[in-house]
Parts: sequence; structure tokens; C-alpha cells
Amino acid sequence: MRTIIFSIITILIISATVFIGQTPKEEPTKGKYVLVIHGGAGNADKNMPTELKEKYLSSLESALQIGKKILESGGSSLDAVEQVVRFLEDDSLFNAGRGAVLTSEGVAELDASIMYGKDLSTGAVANVKRVKNPITAARTVMEKSNHVLLVSDGAEKFAKSKGLEMVDPSYFITSEEYERWTKKKESEKKGTVGAVALDMAGNISAATSTGGMFYKLPGRVGDAPLVNAGTYANNKTAGISCTGWGERFIKNTVAFNVSALMEYKGYTLKEAVDEMIHKRLQKGDGGLIAIDKHGNFELSYSTNAMFRGAINSDGKKIVKIWE
Amino acid sequence: MRTIIFSIITILIISATVFIGQTPKEEPTKGKYVLVIHGGAGNADKNMPTELKEKYLSSLESALQIGKKILESGGSSLDAVEQVVRFLEDDSLFNAGRGAVLTSEGVAELDASIMYGKDLSTGAVANVKRVKNPITAARTVMEKSNHVLLVSDGAEKFAKSKGLEMVDPSYFITSEEYERWTKKKESEKKGTVGAVALDMAGNISAATSTGGMFYKLPGRVGDAPLVNAGTYANNKTAGISCTGWGERFIKNTVAFNVSALMEYKGYTLKEAVDEMIHKRLQKGDGGLIAIDKHGNFELSYSTNAMFRGAINSDGKKIVKIWE
Repeated sequence: MRTIIFSIITILIISATVFIGQTPKEEPTKGKYVLVIHGGAGNADKNMPTELKEKYLSSLESALQIGKKILESGGSSLDAVEQVVRFLEDDSLFNAGRGAVLTSEGVAELDASIMYGKDLSTGAVANVKRVKNPITAARTVMEKSNHVLLVSDGAEKFAKSKGLEMVDPSYFITSEEYERWTKKKESEKKGTVGAVALDMAGNISAATSTGGMFYKLPGRVGDAPLVNAGTYANNKTAGISCTGWGERFIKNTVAFNVSALMEYKGYTLKEAVDEMIHKRLQKGDGGLIAIDKHGNFELSYSTNAMFRGAINSDGKKIVKIWE
Repeated sequence: MRTIIFSIITILIISATVFIGQTPKEEPTKGKYVLVIHGGAGNADKNMPTELKEKYLSSLESALQIGKKILESGGSSLDAVEQVVRFLEDDSLFNAGRGAVLTSEGVAELDASIMYGKDLSTGAVANVKRVKNPITAARTVMEKSNHVLLVSDGAEKFAKSKGLEMVDPSYFITSEEYERWTKKKESEKKGTVGAVALDMAGNISAATSTGGMFYKLPGRVGDAPLVNAGTYANNKTAGISCTGWGERFIKNTVAFNVSALMEYKGYTLKEAVDEMIHKRLQKGDGGLIAIDKHGNFELSYSTNAMFRGAINSDGKKIVKIWE
């Protein structure tokens, strides 16, 4: 009898502990905004000329201001990430849009994806050579087709039919990139660009755009246009945009895994991001930016640098390359 | 003091409960084999001519025997799934390789992926029009390139450079498919093909190949060539090959989610598969085949039919279309 009573007491205590330990179901944060951006993770020379460093920092700052303007006036996270990524695509400093790295055949082949965390709608393009802003093509696939991913000529034909700005493939090739290609200077890696935003309505969006890997085989597609691998957004958990060695990000399902570890295992955003970047991936593989539904954000990488920035409605701002 | 002692006792009891409740780390099953295959999930007319029905069943039976022969002689699951899928690609009854459905422009654009659960290595091709066996091209990308996914012309050039059999795009177009295309007979959906195997060394592989969606936009890529969405294999959990409405499988990360629910939430294979096919996806979206590391398998779908088969070293065999 005493044993039974003791058992019952123990069970009650365990139940109470479990009950008290449970956090209430939290709604997504509303009324505040957060924007995080990256211009790639890789090996950036700490001794780069001050002028070049200032150019990078100034470009990241401008990108943040573009997104901030949209978000603080109550605009959607989808508009914010698209416009920020468009700006970074147009800036030839980064490996996306104009200024992208070239394939082994000397062509710029571009990939991009976008995802909306409210309803998991998503769109992407890969291996496009004539669409000025791949991220806008990705959004157009999401909103104006029944498909999720269009590639190559078909993607270009679709973009053109929807009135998107088309350019000659030579538009993307800067003299710097052409020279790197002729000299096969692989060491100076350039980074993918990406943005994640939480808007004042509580919706999370993520976007990623890239020229891919330097001297890649024609037709090579990395993680950037693949939702789940390089990009993911879900209001229940977080939004994520990755940069790095694409093949490893695909095998490790990095973007979705951050969300899955939060949803299925109760990890915080930081725990989930650390698990992916510092445990499952190898040192030097790359990094990611992410925002959870509460507005917490992470800018994490295992390379020596990541071009990155963050801004939020609490007045916090970060623009950094190293440390 | 009494409270402290009581607390310590309670903690000890909780610890013991947790410890006893833990299942020991289970090693993958060795010394037995399992093979599951599908020829697509969709709306198959129950009143189809007996002769046609027999053709389907006979083809599925032949596919099982090809895989069984490899597996029972100690061959690898990777060889088994590749050879089974090659056979189904060559058979014009299925929507993969010869006999694939045509795009809105009347072309066969083919996608395939393969994954090896031992080390998560994977390869895929998408939007190829001249490679006779896309699944072999996918395996070649995995084994003979530094990349994971190649698309379009680049994928074809790569396949050709590695000595794979190339064909004229007209090879894939059967008179039946050409007629369906001219009449835009969308209702008679044809299915993707796939195979998952567990070999006697305990390694799981998965492979999927498809012509995609009937009358799709040129360049459209579905879930089949995207590991995480349509195909996944991990010796720690399971191997999965999906068939159905690709866009929905991508958004729901179906293949990887089966594995994630098992790994992160402790679901059984059946629980994870049911969650994805019958809860997260909608009725009619499609189905999947899967094998876990213990040799349990699932053939699950929410359509009225799935062309499917299973065989294992315990002498069990299934070849079915409906019920």
C-alpha cells in the first residue's frame, strides 16, 4: 500500500514537473520586424584594400536600408527579401546576378529561390543565363505558375513571357570575373547572397541567389535554388538562407534541418543553427543567416568570414565581414 | 532536510525511468535483403483491359526479379535500385525514360536521382532530353563528379563525356504519348518510377526517375530529382522514393521528413509515412515506398492506385496496382 501511494505521489510530481516545464504555445511575434542579409561566407582576405572593404560594407548597409524601409512601413517580408536580393544581384561585388562567377566554359549560370513562411509557397529558377534578376524570376514562378522550380531555357522563356527584364548573357560578366576565369583563380571565392525577414504581420520569408561555384561544370545546380537545402521559411519555426559548399548543404538538408530540429526536437534557433554549421557540416563549409518566429536571429559561419548584416525594429544594427 | 531527501529520491526515480525507457542503439539489419518498387501513384482505371493489367503486373514482377538477383547474391542496394529503375525506364508503360509524358511543347524532359544511405552520397539529373537512362546519369554524377545535381545541356554533355548511351529526343516519345499530347488527355496520369533496397550488408539505397507532369512547362522540375523532396536514403533511418504531385512533395520535404520524424521524434517507419501521406499531404497527392534499417517496408498512397511491388529474403512478395 505504501509503495502504491509513493508511486502515485512520484507520478504526480513527474506530471507537475513536465507540466510546469512546458512553454505555452507561442504565437509568432507581431508588430516588430527583423531583417538579416548575407553576401556569402568564404575566405575573405583580412588585408583587403580599405577602399574595397568600405565598398562591401556600404553595399551591405544600403541593402539593409532597402529592406528596413519596406518593413518599417508595414510591408511584407516577401517584398523585403526580394528587393534586398535584387539590389545585391545588381551589385557586381557579389556572386549573384551581375558579377557572378563563371562556369568552366566561361558562362554565368544563375540560380535563385524564395519561400514564404506563411503558407510554405515557394518558387525557384536554376541555370538561367538571360534573366537580369533571378530572384524576381523565382518569385514569379511562385506566384504565376503551378510549378516550384523551372530551369534553363524553359525558365527563361517563362520569365520573358511574364514581362521580366531579359539581358544578354554578357551582361553578367564583369572584367574582374572574366580575368579570374582566364587565370583560373579559384582561391578568391565569392559568395552567394541572401536575405531573411520577419515582417510586422509575423510572416517570415527567405531568399537566396547565386552564380554558384567558380569553374563549376555547365548545368551544375547547388543548394541555393533548392528549398530545404539552401533556403527555407516556415512561420512555425524560422526562415533560413544558406551560403557555402552547395553539395554539402544539399546532403545535410541544412535549411530544412534547422526548422526540423526546432519543430521536432524543441531546439532554440541558436542550438539548431550551431548543430548544422558547427557539428554536421565541416569547418570551412559555409554559413547561414536565420530568424525565428520570435525575432531572434543568427548569423553563423565556419569560414574565416561572412559578409553579413542585420537590422531590427529595436534599433539593433550589425554590418560585418570578419569576427 | 526531509524535502531535500525526498527531492533526491524523486530525481533518482525519474532518472531510472528515463534510463530504463531508452531503447538500445540498434544496428542496421545485416544478412537479409528487401526491395520495394513503384511505377507511380495516380488514377488507374480499375476497368483497364486485362491484357494491359497483365502487362503492368508482369513488368513489375520482372523488375523485382532483377533486383532480387542482385541482392540475394550479396550485391549492393545501389546496384539493385539502379538496375531496377533502368528496366522501368526502358519499359514504355511507365512515365520515365521511354514512354515519358510530354511537356506543353511536346518534348520528353527527364529527371532522376539516386542516394546511398551509407554515406549520404547522392547524384541527380534534371531536364535531360538525350540520355537514354537518366538514373545511370544520376549515379554517374554521384560517383564521377564533384557535384550533386546537373541539369539540361550541361548534364547531357557530362553524361556523354562519361560514355553513357545517348539517344535522339524522339526515342522517348511513344505513339501513345504523342496521341495523348495532341489530344491533351490529362486525366490519364502516368507515374514516376522508383526503387528502394536494403542489401545484406545493411546499406539502404533509393532511386527515382520520371518524365514529370503531363503538359508541364518546359524546364519544370518536380520532386523526383531533388533529394530531400522525392528521394532520400540514410542507413540511420530509412530509404524513401516518392511519386505524385511533385510541387506538394517539395513544399512538404516529404522524403527527408519521413527520415526526420523517425530520427528526431522516434516515429516508426509506418507512423512517419502515415503522417506525411495521410496528414500533411492531401488526399490524391500521391504516395511513396520506403524501407527502414530493420527491413520493415511501407507502400503507401492516397490515390486510388499505386503500381507497386515488394520482395524480401523472408520469401514475402507483393505485386499490386489497387487495394
